Amino acid sequence: MKRLVLGVQYDGSCWQGWQTQPSGKTVQDQLEKALSSFAQTPIITACAGRTDAGVHAVEQIAHFDTELDRSMYSWVNGVNAFLPDSVSVQWATEVPFADPDAHDNFHARFSAYARTYHYVLYNNPVRSALLSQRAGWVFRPLDLERMQAAIPFLVGEHDFTVFRAAACQAKSPVKHMYDVQIKQEGSLFIFSLRANAFLHHMVRNIVGALIFVGTGKREPAWIEELISSRDRSLSAPTFMPDGLYLARIDYDPKWCLPQRKMEADFHFSPFV
Amino acid sequence: MKRLVLGVQYDGSCWQGWQTQPSGKTVQDQLEKALSSFAQTPIITACAGRTDAGVHAVEQIAHFDTELDRSMYSWVNGVNAFLPDSVSVQWATEVPFADPDAHDNFHARFSAYARTYHYVLYNNPVRSALLSQRAGWVFRPLDLERMQAAIPFLVGEHDFTVFRAAACQAKSPVKHMYDVQIKQEGSLFIFSLRANAFLHHMVRNIVGALIFVGTGKREPAWIEELISSRDRSLSAPTFMPDGLYLARIDYDPKWCLPQRKMEADFHFSPFV
Repeated sequence: MKRLVLGVQYDGSCWQGWQTQPSGKTVQDQLEKALSSFAQTPIITACAGRTDAGVHAVEQIAHFDTELDRSMYSWVNGVNAFLPDSVSVQWATEVPFADPDAHDNFHARFSAYARTYHYVLYNNPVRSALLSQRAGWVFRPLDLERMQAAIPFLVGEHDFTVFRAAACQAKSPVKHMYDVQIKQEGSLFIFSLRANAFLHHMVRNIVGALIFVGTGKREPAWIEELISSRDRSLSAPTFMPDGLYLARIDYDPKWCLPQRKMEADFHFSPFV
Repeated sequence: MKRLVLGVQYDGSCWQGWQTQPSGKTVQDQLEKALSSFAQTPIITACAGRTDAGVHAVEQIAHFDTELDRSMYSWVNGVNAFLPDSVSVQWATEVPFADPDAHDNFHARFSAYARTYHYVLYNNPVRSALLSQRAGWVFRPLDLERMQAAIPFLVGEHDFTVFRAAACQAKSPVKHMYDVQIKQEGSLFIFSLRANAFLHHMVRNIVGALIFVGTGKREPAWIEELISSRDRSLSAPTFMPDGLYLARIDYDPKWCLPQRKMEADFHFSPFV
């Protein structure tokens, strides 16, 4: 038995999230169907971060076990031939897997020590058709410096209950936010958040709150008050999924995964 | 009676081209339905360039006549409220229209003296899910300098029969190509072509031929031979519509259209 790891990219606007559903209209369903067609035997995958409906992935990580002996080139190109255009395997690699019962095997979810999400926001009086489903939209002018002033309140270990969806299944609302960056390129704002893990809707809820700060509706220090309050009803509404991208999962370098470089991610401005 | 001009942006992947069809699944149908709903009276539009199925527009130009007295702000935001996400009016303006029978009135198509199209091409061994329907894809490595060496053969007044679709309804195959540029940003190539007018499928056929040059299958001077031959069967296949964007229509500055600046167009690299 081998354990294979895949880098998977998808346009989430076509799908009802990552996790398998009876409808079959999820990224996991599409990936497993394609893998199973290619391998001619059922294949079940595990992923690093189960994204919601409409959320994209620059590089989701998934793994699966197989007895099949194929080149990594075939796992990429062969499986892509079975996938819809909006999902693609970017790379495949094998990780050591001598003892399936060992506790230190690679696992896409449990071996991950950090996740990075980008949120892309289009800030313009008129909405963009070309960015529809690819970026969130705010028509009121946003102030970059105001939003950046709120970053220090988000970084560090916090009880993020205020940014947690009611349906969240995480054991603890305490997460460690390692880094938050907000960049502006013309009419586009790109929020990048890196944490050990995220609660359900956490990025969209944080972006919604930062927009209140960016438009001047709230002061930057309001973010600190919100977090202390642990009261979801005090925060801003959950922002639309359109601009959310699962960008990067961090693992121990010992696994030698051929992951994409993050620097390439900061040039998102298609004709805006 | 007033004549109003609109800048219209669309993601063409959802639509069967610009021109109205009985199915109603075209950009013109969607725009006229939205305009008519907003105005509560039927409105018919004329456009500058009828794009094919799957082809996008950064800024298509359309005009229509109306008796209605509304602010330009309302024509933009009111109509956008009736449009699907993949189509949006970017701006509206009024042009002089004292005498409807005058021969020198503004007309979106007949007053245009040049059109610019961009073709965005993703050059990578593995296809991108996030660029699906937004960029063409070539997996064989492309050489920028080889393709640029073919540019001089395209510029100028030529009989472009070799790049003309069988269904083309243009009166003459002779067009004046003012400018061709090919730029590379990492894995993306952006072809920009500006001409007085284009034949049906002309950009996609030129891009298909340039790809043959870029992969080394043909020499740059082959483009000159092709044009001289006027024989469509000698050229490369029509390339996919996915990466084609109608970017800009040029008019006499006297019309004072609030068109977007072209410089903003050259930053197309969403997470590639």
